[in-house]
Amino acid sequence: MSGTREYSPSNPSPLLPPLVSAISAQRLETSRSNRIHGGKWRRKWFGEDYGDEGKWSNSSSKSLPPCCIKARASVPESEAKCHDTVVSGWFTESQSITDKTGKAHSLKVEKILYRGKSKYQEILVFESSTYGKVLVLDGIVQLTDKDECAYQEMIAHLPLCSIPSPKTVLVIGGGDGGVLREISRHRSVETIHICEIDKLVIDVCEEYFPELYVGFGDPRVQLHVGDAVEFLRNAAEGTYDAIIVDSSDPIGPAQELVEKPFFEMITRALRPGGVLCNQAESLWLHTHLIQDMLAICRETFKGSVHYAWTSVPTYPSGVIGFLLCSKDGEPVNFMDPINPIEQQEGADNAGREIKFYNSEIHKAAFALPSFAKRELSTVYASSRLSQSEQGEDTLKMNLVAKNELVTAS
Amino acid sequence: MSGTREYSPSNPSPLLPPLVSAISAQRLETSRSNRIHGGKWRRKWFGEDYGDEGKWSNSSSKSLPPCCIKARASVPESEAKCHDTVVSGWFTESQSITDKTGKAHSLKVEKILYRGKSKYQEILVFESSTYGKVLVLDGIVQLTDKDECAYQEMIAHLPLCSIPSPKTVLVIGGGDGGVLREISRHRSVETIHICEIDKLVIDVCEEYFPELYVGFGDPRVQLHVGDAVEFLRNAAEGTYDAIIVDSSDPIGPAQELVEKPFFEMITRALRPGGVLCNQAESLWLHTHLIQDMLAICRETFKGSVHYAWTSVPTYPSGVIGFLLCSKDGEPVNFMDPINPIEQQEGADNAGREIKFYNSEIHKAAFALPSFAKRELSTVYASSRLSQSEQGEDTLKMNLVAKNELVTAS
Repeated sequence: MSGTREYSPSNPSPLLPPLVSAISAQRLETSRSNRIHGGKWRRKWFGEDYGDEGKWSNSSSKSLPPCCIKARASVPESEAKCHDTVVSGWFTESQSITDKTGKAHSLKVEKILYRGKSKYQEILVFESSTYGKVLVLDGIVQLTDKDECAYQEMIAHLPLCSIPSPKTVLVIGGGDGGVLREISRHRSVETIHICEIDKLVIDVCEEYFPELYVGFGDPRVQLHVGDAVEFLRNAAEGTYDAIIVDSSDPIGPAQELVEKPFFEMITRALRPGGVLCNQAESLWLHTHLIQDMLAICRETFKGSVHYAWTSVPTYPSGVIGFLLCSKDGEPVNFMDPINPIEQQEGADNAGREIKFYNSEIHKAAFALPSFAKRELSTVYASSRLSQSEQGEDTLKMNLVAKNELVTAS
Repeated sequence: MSGTREYSPSNPSPLLPPLVSAISAQRLETSRSNRIHGGKWRRKWFGEDYGDEGKWSNSSSKSLPPCCIKARASVPESEAKCHDTVVSGWFTESQSITDKTGKAHSLKVEKILYRGKSKYQEILVFESSTYGKVLVLDGIVQLTDKDECAYQEMIAHLPLCSIPSPKTVLVIGGGDGGVLREISRHRSVETIHICEIDKLVIDVCEEYFPELYVGFGDPRVQLHVGDAVEFLRNAAEGTYDAIIVDSSDPIGPAQELVEKPFFEMITRALRPGGVLCNQAESLWLHTHLIQDMLAICRETFKGSVHYAWTSVPTYPSGVIGFLLCSKDGEPVNFMDPINPIEQQEGADNAGREIKFYNSEIHKAAFALPSFAKRELSTVYASSRLSQSEQGEDTLKMNLVAKNELVTAS
């Protein structure tokens, strides 16, 4: 694969600034001309506009909330400088140093395995001393061998175990293959579409992350390398039983303009009663963003809308959230899986065994801390009006959901 | 309070080494003559011996498991050098840099509020930019304003909500007052004993952590400053309904020798059917230690023994575990609280509102990832023999527990 080089952190470049913080501060000033547009940009802000078409553009200059300043630091640089995040043998997420989250995570580097840059982002792969191999995009840890199981298994099985017999599934992003690997455990699934914008991510994972890339080996998988918005625009209405968005991060001033049309396109592509699972940040860091996402999705999907979370040590604050939404239609009770993984023949033997997910972990993921229940309950309260406009079954489901969310808070 | 000084990280001492790693490496070589013995030493290794009495000493030189090497780095230095953990305005846990966990956490420092040293440990308090005030003992983060709620509420309410009407409670360690604050919500409680070895921790928290120290203001609290082992030795048999150990960390080669006698003393001090909640590490990092603790406790307590966990962003791997044990007697089902906090009059209004804990979070804490269920199930399987020696009710409870632990794994 082109761009593959080995680099020893014990002999860092003499060009390295003495402190990562200096580099990261410099990054804040770099050009934001490179926009990420669909595909593998998990936990990244994708800028004020949304696509080459220039649609849904937002020239507003309103400032980011303090907790989201990190996003600015993750904007791609004009030159690949992945090694700048490695100082004295330790990798530190670039945005963590400079942003106002005020917390940094560092991983000890044994060996840098790959550095390269695609049209969309910088890609870094290194062997860490205790978390195995690590994939970094634009200075942000995407996955590690040690804890990728939690993220990949949860984002796949939370939606697929919540509906009976899913057949047609779309993955947006997910170019590492891990989500595909998990979907493959479901024998009912007949077709798996994946839309990943960055072919280089797929190629890098083929070489360095065979335990994830294996997901592409399933004959049910159809890969589309391209823009997710374009893909969704061309998808026939009501195509998918489930859509898994392993990519975008609704952080930034363009949130309302960007997200509502995006979620509307997702809704359109789902069959009635179909489900979305979308990566949804940390409730320790971003409850206001989660509130916004919940509010938008309740307006858009008109079925059940819930927030779940789980532990992923190498993500900020050690957790990651998932937004689970069902389109108006057959009611979906996400909190009690109707299609439990333990009852699916061969699911645990499809490739490697399941490391993290099980039905107890599924149910537990919806138990929220009291502070989050209080903050998110305002979204549920404000959605009473829209509930009254819905069908009887869906209304009942939403009221159950609301009660479960506010009980005991 | 003596020792109180203000220090600006923007003007670090010229004596600071350029890198924290250099300091931490140096720490590995420092004297281990200062032993911690009871009290506020959460997440610390307490050395090969156990107390001035020299009892349960262990001269074995067998090496620590790789994941526990961090412990060596947290041994107190002969001189207070708390500020050495702050470089360029960022605090980094000293052991995280040098140990083989290969992961470091850093918090941005706004202002150092206190540095001092007691007979037992170095104490550092600083204002962080986003986690509020931070208490650090011997270079290890003990609590932050932002996420202390998760730890304090869980370690207190997991045991107290699992038994009907607790009346007499003992806290070992917990000198910050946070666990006392949470116990105070339980109106059934008549007496709260706390045994904390380090008076300076209490004094520092009185000045800098009023939201935790408030726990000492409850008239039911009786403070004993001294050695926990000595305190337990003198306690009348069967005194306590619940004991909460907010301190020791069973890491190190002396584990078996140290822990079994300690847990036996705990068991002796509990009434039949009384419960222990003990801080119990991260299942992402230390499953072998958790296995050992579970095995020892199943031998010792002869009631229910379970592992629970929750999210605490500033602890290693972002989670912390709790070992919950009941003494032979009235069966205790930890996983379904018999004494739910929501049904206790005034519990949420005792001082500040409850931020994290609720009955759903309680139940969810016992849902373990599949990898942990598999690894810990070996402990449960090996305890079949001891189960057969127990009474019928307890046996039934243990079998239920075992089934719940291995189902779906």
